[in-house]
Amino acid sequence: MSCPEPLRERAERLDAVDPLAGYLDRFVVTEPGLIYLDGNSLGRLPRTTVDAVRRTVEHQWGEELIGSWERHWMALPTLLGDLLGQAVLGAGAGQVVVGDSTTVSLYKAVSAALDAAPGRTDVVVERDGFPTDRYVVESLARRAGGKVRWLEPPGPDGVRPGHLDGLLGPTVAAVVLSHVDYRSAALLDLPSVTAAIHAAGALAVWDLCHSVGVVPIDLDAAEADLAVGCTYKYLNGGPGAPAFTYVRRDLQPSLGQPIWGWWGRADMMAMPQGYQPVDGVGAWLAGTPPVLSMAAVEPGVRLVSEAGVPAIRAKSMALTALAVQLYDEWLVPAGFGLATTRDPARRGSHITVTHPDAESLVRRLVEAGVVPDFRRPDGIRLGFSPLTTRFVDVHDGLWRLASLAAGDRAL
Amino acid sequence: MSCPEPLRERAERLDAVDPLAGYLDRFVVTEPGLIYLDGNSLGRLPRTTVDAVRRTVEHQWGEELIGSWERHWMALPTLLGDLLGQAVLGAGAGQVVVGDSTTVSLYKAVSAALDAAPGRTDVVVERDGFPTDRYVVESLARRAGGKVRWLEPPGPDGVRPGHLDGLLGPTVAAVVLSHVDYRSAALLDLPSVTAAIHAAGALAVWDLCHSVGVVPIDLDAAEADLAVGCTYKYLNGGPGAPAFTYVRRDLQPSLGQPIWGWWGRADMMAMPQGYQPVDGVGAWLAGTPPVLSMAAVEPGVRLVSEAGVPAIRAKSMALTALAVQLYDEWLVPAGFGLATTRDPARRGSHITVTHPDAESLVRRLVEAGVVPDFRRPDGIRLGFSPLTTRFVDVHDGLWRLASLAAGDRAL
Repeated sequence: MSCPEPLRERAERLDAVDPLAGYLDRFVVTEPGLIYLDGNSLGRLPRTTVDAVRRTVEHQWGEELIGSWERHWMALPTLLGDLLGQAVLGAGAGQVVVGDSTTVSLYKAVSAALDAAPGRTDVVVERDGFPTDRYVVESLARRAGGKVRWLEPPGPDGVRPGHLDGLLGPTVAAVVLSHVDYRSAALLDLPSVTAAIHAAGALAVWDLCHSVGVVPIDLDAAEADLAVGCTYKYLNGGPGAPAFTYVRRDLQPSLGQPIWGWWGRADMMAMPQGYQPVDGVGAWLAGTPPVLSMAAVEPGVRLVSEAGVPAIRAKSMALTALAVQLYDEWLVPAGFGLATTRDPARRGSHITVTHPDAESLVRRLVEAGVVPDFRRPDGIRLGFSPLTTRFVDVHDGLWRLASLAAGDRAL
Repeated sequence: MSCPEPLRERAERLDAVDPLAGYLDRFVVTEPGLIYLDGNSLGRLPRTTVDAVRRTVEHQWGEELIGSWERHWMALPTLLGDLLGQAVLGAGAGQVVVGDSTTVSLYKAVSAALDAAPGRTDVVVERDGFPTDRYVVESLARRAGGKVRWLEPPGPDGVRPGHLDGLLGPTVAAVVLSHVDYRSAALLDLPSVTAAIHAAGALAVWDLCHSVGVVPIDLDAAEADLAVGCTYKYLNGGPGAPAFTYVRRDLQPSLGQPIWGWWGRADMMAMPQGYQPVDGVGAWLAGTPPVLSMAAVEPGVRLVSEAGVPAIRAKSMALTALAVQLYDEWLVPAGFGLATTRDPARRGSHITVTHPDAESLVRRLVEAGVVPDFRRPDGIRLGFSPLTTRFVDVHDGLWRLASLAAGDRAL
């Protein structure tokens, strides 16, 4: 099977006119031949991050020692929060903090939602949602004496407001939804789904892990209540980079998170008796944040901010459109299915194709220099990170996948 | 006021025969004249940490990308846990994990203790304990429908088993105590206090932040139940370095922590329906750990392990003994008090002196090149980190403090 030239030429032409093409040079790329289609799991390393972390370690920690807490680090959770709010979340200042993991952040958010409405003990979450979201909801609904209301998979187009009809009601405190689904890539209409949740008197808790930095988000305009997300995918914040938490300003006085720690205490350094949360979103902090990991967050967010989410989204839609086209061309005949919607407006920046031999294909694809993600039982997730993924990467990656599969099954 | 030479000569002699003197060269020291007496708040930067973090950023993240999760990072929480267990906690393998902040770790521990004993809804904690410990206990006792039983400050010698007599009882689920008090430095006898707590049917939850790495700890031998602690003080793990959690092996099947996340799930990567904790201490993980901060933990622990806690403790006792001697000599006449016990066996590796002008003295001391910690309302905490603090540092630091105070008040 030889590679059909016209399609590759088309990919090359798309790269040639790509206004974001220059951003790849802003990242560390040591193996130019590698086709990395997993930036939606761990984004590449921005060059400026290397210096930012080194400065934090060698200068701030090594030289300035404890003085760096006041000079550089105490404000990091809210500074990074405001930066994320402005750059990628559509959130005015004072509504976002960065610190704990996504799981811990979501735990705080869902717990606060349950506490805020004593009569409401149930939480809605997707049956196919990201595991940690489901587990957090299971834990907290049970603890509240309520139950999980499972939203059954609505198909590759994802949840629409109507899908919630039978699930909402007077006992539901919150609905936890992924803005972009980690497998299907279904992109929900955040404003209309939020409105439907509000109409039933519940709070909307958004998991933005797979949408932040690659899809336009306007939390303030949508009147979203709570949102969490990680910073290590399209924001390129590094492995396990701390998550953010958004709490809408007017909800802040009435919502309280359960993990009372010194970082959320008013007049923290006075170390007073009795917990009193500080005014504002700072009350959502708990313990001392992991500074070295925090230091790696800003450079990636700055790159996304500089490129601009609209331009990133435009390229992202073109990348997934090319991938779907190549899927039709090469992967359908090789026995693959498509778990992602064909509507570009309703998907994020990855696609998932399915194949009975997905696990072995992914292993062989990695050996062949293409890195996707395997999602049990039969999913191959191909992620496109617009600042670092070229159109020829999409072409060559899918071509190698098709070629490998053709070894198993005639094209 | 001129510096009395004989005492400084004695300090120099102590340094000359100090078997740990060579360790200072293993740390980054850019300002040799600085007298850093705050290593008990943020330990100095080990030289090998610079390379460890750089390798994690540039090689593991930058080059190996997502492959590093399986190759290097997935096992970090338990590998670091076992290392800490062996090196500094007296804990056999499989009982310690590293990941979240101390606050989040303590929240899990106290919550699990309350859940394990439905009839027991109260928690004992020190009125003068570290703020985050008090706040976590307040939050969880209230949530459990119980109350906080406050242990009033027993003086600089710290809590003995008898002090718990009136507080323990059939409604107490757990007692949260600092092994070494963050202000007074009182060092508790962990085994006998644990035994007293057990005799009343409660669980002992130890906060080891100010003792780990500088005081011998044998959690297994003491049959401690749960313990948490940070890694950024005497373990030199860097700002906000993740905390550890110890869960005694035979308690693991019956204790469940509340933050159900994908990292604590059995068969995690299968992302199955329904939370089922993995067997063992791995169930105490929640979300994705902050890898860059995790990467900085090992080098400092290795240094402590190489030097050995007994040798570190011996030097620590000599350092605090010198400090108390100099306090008597210089600080008593200058109007200072001592908030730390005079019994070296009953204190950790810092001393706290008190003075009505403590806040302004600390500010001027920092300007004079000596870095202590101010603890409201009137405490000056002088921390001695045996791998990096010299006897002449103790001498010169206290001399400068005395000289500054003499400006306010005649010696």
